[in-house]
Amino acid sequence: MLRVAIVGSSGYTGVELARILSRHPSVEITAATSRQYNGVKLSEVFPNLRGCTDIVCRNHSVTEITSLADLIFCAVPHKTAMDIVPQFLDAGKKVIDLSADFRLKDVSTYEDWYQTHNSPELIGEAVYGLPELYRESVQHAQLIANPGCYPTSIILALAPALKAGIIDLSSIIADCKSGTSGAGRAAAVGTLFCEVTDGFRAYKVGGTHRHTPEIEQELSILAGDELTISFTPHLLPVSRGILSTVYGNLNRSCDEDDIRAMYQAMFKDHYFVRLLGRGLQPATQYVRGSNFCDIGLVVDDRTNRLIVTAAIDNVVKGAAGQAVQNMNLMCGFPESSGLTHIPLFP
Amino acid sequence: MLRVAIVGSSGYTGVELARILSRHPSVEITAATSRQYNGVKLSEVFPNLRGCTDIVCRNHSVTEITSLADLIFCAVPHKTAMDIVPQFLDAGKKVIDLSADFRLKDVSTYEDWYQTHNSPELIGEAVYGLPELYRESVQHAQLIANPGCYPTSIILALAPALKAGIIDLSSIIADCKSGTSGAGRAAAVGTLFCEVTDGFRAYKVGGTHRHTPEIEQELSILAGDELTISFTPHLLPVSRGILSTVYGNLNRSCDEDDIRAMYQAMFKDHYFVRLLGRGLQPATQYVRGSNFCDIGLVVDDRTNRLIVTAAIDNVVKGAAGQAVQNMNLMCGFPESSGLTHIPLFP
Amino acid sequence: MLRVAIVGSSGYTGVELARILSRHPSVEITAATSRQYNGVKLSEVFPNLRGCTDIVCRNHSVTEITSLADLIFCAVPHKTAMDIVPQFLDAGKKVIDLSADFRLKDVSTYEDWYQTHNSPELIGEAVYGLPELYRESVQHAQLIANPGCYPTSIILALAPALKAGIIDLSSIIADCKSGTSGAGRAAAVGTLFCEVTDGFRAYKVGGTHRHTPEIEQELSILAGDELTISFTPHLLPVSRGILSTVYGNLNRSCDEDDIRAMYQAMFKDHYFVRLLGRGLQPATQYVRGSNFCDIGLVVDDRTNRLIVTAAIDNVVKGAAGQAVQNMNLMCGFPESSGLTHIPLFP
Amino acid sequence: MLRVAIVGSSGYTGVELARILSRHPSVEITAATSRQYNGVKLSEVFPNLRGCTDIVCRNHSVTEITSLADLIFCAVPHKTAMDIVPQFLDAGKKVIDLSADFRLKDVSTYEDWYQTHNSPELIGEAVYGLPELYRESVQHAQLIANPGCYPTSIILALAPALKAGIIDLSSIIADCKSGTSGAGRAAAVGTLFCEVTDGFRAYKVGGTHRHTPEIEQELSILAGDELTISFTPHLLPVSRGILSTVYGNLNRSCDEDDIRAMYQAMFKDHYFVRLLGRGLQPATQYVRGSNFCDIGLVVDDRTNRLIVTAAIDNVVKGAAGQAVQNMNLMCGFPESSGLTHIPLFP
Repeated sequence: MLRVAIVGSSGYTGVELARILSRHPSVEITAATSRQYNGVKLSEVFPNLRGCTDIVCRNHSVTEITSLADLIFCAVPHKTAMDIVPQFLDAGKKVIDLSADFRLKDVSTYEDWYQTHNSPELIGEAVYGLPELYRESVQHAQLIANPGCYPTSIILALAPALKAGIIDLSSIIADCKSGTSGAGRAAAVGTLFCEVTDGFRAYKVGGTHRHTPEIEQELSILAGDELTISFTPHLLPVSRGILSTVYGNLNRSCDEDDIRAMYQAMFKDHYFVRLLGRGLQPATQYVRGSNFCDIGLVVDDRTNRLIVTAAIDNVVKGAAGQAVQNMNLMCGFPESSGLTHIPLFP
Repeated sequence: MLRVAIVGSSGYTGVELARILSRHPSVEITAATSRQYNGVKLSEVFPNLRGCTDIVCRNHSVTEITSLADLIFCAVPHKTAMDIVPQFLDAGKKVIDLSADFRLKDVSTYEDWYQTHNSPELIGEAVYGLPELYRESVQHAQLIANPGCYPTSIILALAPALKAGIIDLSSIIADCKSGTSGAGRAAAVGTLFCEVTDGFRAYKVGGTHRHTPEIEQELSILAGDELTISFTPHLLPVSRGILSTVYGNLNRSCDEDDIRAMYQAMFKDHYFVRLLGRGLQPATQYVRGSNFCDIGLVVDDRTNRLIVTAAIDNVVKGAAGQAVQNMNLMCGFPESSGLTHIPLFP
Repeated sequence: MLRVAIVGSSGYTGVELARILSRHPSVEITAATSRQYNGVKLSEVFPNLRGCTDIVCRNHSVTEITSLADLIFCAVPHKTAMDIVPQFLDAGKKVIDLSADFRLKDVSTYEDWYQTHNSPELIGEAVYGLPELYRESVQHAQLIANPGCYPTSIILALAPALKAGIIDLSSIIADCKSGTSGAGRAAAVGTLFCEVTDGFRAYKVGGTHRHTPEIEQELSILAGDELTISFTPHLLPVSRGILSTVYGNLNRSCDEDDIRAMYQAMFKDHYFVRLLGRGLQPATQYVRGSNFCDIGLVVDDRTNRLIVTAAIDNVVKGAAGQAVQNMNLMCGFPESSGLTHIPLFP
Repeated sequence: MLRVAIVGSSGYTGVELARILSRHPSVEITAATSRQYNGVKLSEVFPNLRGCTDIVCRNHSVTEITSLADLIFCAVPHKTAMDIVPQFLDAGKKVIDLSADFRLKDVSTYEDWYQTHNSPELIGEAVYGLPELYRESVQHAQLIANPGCYPTSIILALAPALKAGIIDLSSIIADCKSGTSGAGRAAAVGTLFCEVTDGFRAYKVGGTHRHTPEIEQELSILAGDELTISFTPHLLPVSRGILSTVYGNLNRSCDEDDIRAMYQAMFKDHYFVRLLGRGLQPATQYVRGSNFCDIGLVVDDRTNRLIVTAAIDNVVKGAAGQAVQNMNLMCGFPESSGLTHIPLFP
């Protein structure tokens, strides 16, 4: 059994890692850290886990964690992550970091959007953990930069079209809608039940959300050319789920069936991408609780635009599930091991 | 007191008309028609109305309605509307039609998207009832084509920018999200609670929603040139509310403050449009139950795009409230008479 | 115009008072206090109020408030209320206190459930502001103890039956379900959207909720004898609304129609109580945004129990609306003045 | 691999059976019947199942089903069930019937609440499939009457207390709240999203819900004496989940710890019952998607009442999950096989 640690176990990503890893056939959770809940059973913090794991939250030191675990999931905020990840790596541990700290290849871009980076030398080592793009590199990585939730949905939505070179690179708009779990579990007026329910809004409109450079980095690599996008996040009155509606002008006349074939070719060996047939649209309720990414595509002949919609569970494929998928690849387990949850509907 | 009839009172638009008109100071509801609930009090069909109106639903003939009312709200489906509206007009009645039957100026466009039109001669007479654009014409109209819910939000979002000529007309994308009341009150699996709650999806992607020609007609008039848009509707797990996120490429370099000034100039005498300050975004929960349209705007300097977000209550400003606003103008009442509801939050 | 102050305007009760009072025909809001938002427009704190009131939140002293207003709504927590109410009364002002500080007639009961009372002499002066029971006293009161939300629903549900003496006083169980706005607007993990949505739970089970002595006080007065109840609150994933299901064993054989007649007799002159007919049940969505209390009653012949269900909007009839109803009575306005909102459905 | 059939696969119980059985290690789904969707893949009816099962819905005859499967889940309405179950039994098949047709031991009670029974001779053979009470009988049964959702939660809540004889049998009140999936997937106005969301109501108040005799039968067996209860169902604006709040007067003075010990003793070998510690309350969101029943208990010293709260997922422990648990017992599989889902939170 692989011994794994969850660093930062009291957030929504932490509890989801615990939910998935507690039932993983090849893994044992040997540490779950939390400053706030030091000494408290994780199943008391999150009563859904009652009877499913006995792990007790501890305010472990980095040294203790390295002695307890072989692979470490870092589910702490950016900045905190880069303070501890180097020590795990030095101790020879595998690390899957769910923060933004190792996602951006260009240090100055990172520092423009976040703050000074104190381990820039590790950026080159980190593999961007989107297995549908980088499966092989993930298999050999020691450090995974686990993708953001919005980026996962947008990149998967556009990858085949950008690789095929059929999109006008100046035309991309990603209109994205996320469930409230993406905002985390911190007490805040803005995410109180009464502020969110029965409502809907955009936020960070106009290219100011920090996922923007991450999305542009990966889309540019796919396109083979620098590009800039409009990315608009919105807040949905649901717990889980992201639906991204992505628009791109076609730079030539393309048949929907041809584009569908490009998508099928790229995703045919990727279990977690479900490409929908003509006329079908994804919905967040059909991926709830699972690691699937459902993709629908339409060519709007009136405007010669490609419109791709992608649905994921932001806590699973957008965070904890993708992290476990990466672990499976890093450790030689079957890619879907522990991740065969069928979406919960209704 | 003006005697008004609600034709088609058992849908969500019908109950909302009853809610508003029951408290209108210059109006008396003298007829509420329903085939299904003939003989039943409207307040039994919709128990929120208990104690607020005594009107009984009747399966009235057209003749009965014309004898009972001076102004008629038609809240029946398209096709049904055009079968009865001419008779109301012939009897000298004022009519506010909430269906699509008289919204499209071009009969052939109507017939492409709907079916054969049997009163094409009335199309020229009908005034498109968006008072923020056509207040004066509304004042003198006998027949109002009350706008669709999505069109109301999109047209108000873009009107000042299109009039100013600052948008590349081939670049417009309207990504719109609507509450489920827009789907009506018919029993259907797709709008059951369990199918909609805790989920989100797009539908009629790729320019196939019937509101498309209506939106394009009005945007083209504003722009002074024909244009085609991408319009993507989505279904929100809320009862009421539309948020439209509208994108347009700026065809010149524009300062956000200058654009804001254009919007202020156009809407300064329009009580129901609330233009938000820099950095603020509308939300459907802040217009719930009211006739307001809240508008936020941002210039994304990275892509030179204008992003306008507009929030309305689809049942009020998107249907019943706007209809009453039109009635007020047609009848010389103050424009906001009976429509001073403050949005219900939380 | 009566000049009114809202002390504690930044909570959900505060914004609801502002929503109602901004449209009240006989009232002007002259002060809205908030420490946290001193100098900020109330319509910036609560954007639903945009364009509806210009009042700016101020951290007013008690002296300033007394100079600005003739009647004061205290929407601050218990303990804080009793620190300031005496000064308002000394200055000759009318006060409607929405906290628990003046609801309990017995000081020692208050001190058992809350803390030391520092103005016990005022308790006797305060009138319990449930107009359906104490309309006349309210009319002559200077200080109103505005009832709690749960108590309002339970007391109205049982009043006629207890007055008629048909209930076994040891058998009363009130199983109550409240929307989340009842928990207030403080940032807290327990009321985050993700913790509440798509879920349901009981809390403070077993007679530990502080509304218990208030309910028992009023039910005992109605019954003419001391009684003890089981009161179990639950948290609903809705913003607004309380539904109380109240059980009592009949101490004699009673016909449902006879009991219905008792209820009709008691409530026939009370506009805000809507007694439902045989076979009908109230629902919170039919009172949303209104000051109505809907009541349904059933006699379960199999167990000889009376089951009464009462639905209110906890923010309106359970707080702000009832406060305005009390103000109307105290000031000689029509009882429903400013309170004619029809419930918002859907 | 055991070959299993789902008869009636297009309802919410059907899709949940498919979700669970598709991942069960010892089972293969060989038939899924549906008249409405004959020839359609089940994963097209329920897109959450995409990529997880290839089964195609068929309008199979009874004969075809018996040739295809060794064990049959009947997820069809009562009456329909008793028309086909005898044929499955005659063919030597094991049957788990999720309807009410074989739950009531007394034919005349059945006929009072439902309709004429056409296979009364089978009633004696059927085992009431609540494994926490009847594990051994289930192991040897050919026909299981799978319990109703409300009864499951109520019976588990009261079983230890009734067996211990500490409850006044005339005092039991079960105030129960269910998610909307319990109403099924039929198109109906009453369960439309807009009718249910942001609201709450009671229904079938006063002992008229058909689960009443089933509950009373099992509670009477536990108590060793006939009893009658008050059972009040309510409709929650959530998809899944039942919370039952059950009240009983203690007929002697009992310590909460003593009662807790009785519960522990009864449930200690039952994995799916999670008894909560002192001061803790269950919530439906902590059992979502799982087969757990969480139970909290409090003694209200003021009234000498026991208040037990029980939370289940009505689609899992209240239907499909319990059916699979019964299958496991009947077929000698581990009782929790295929049922180890950890509840999905948030």
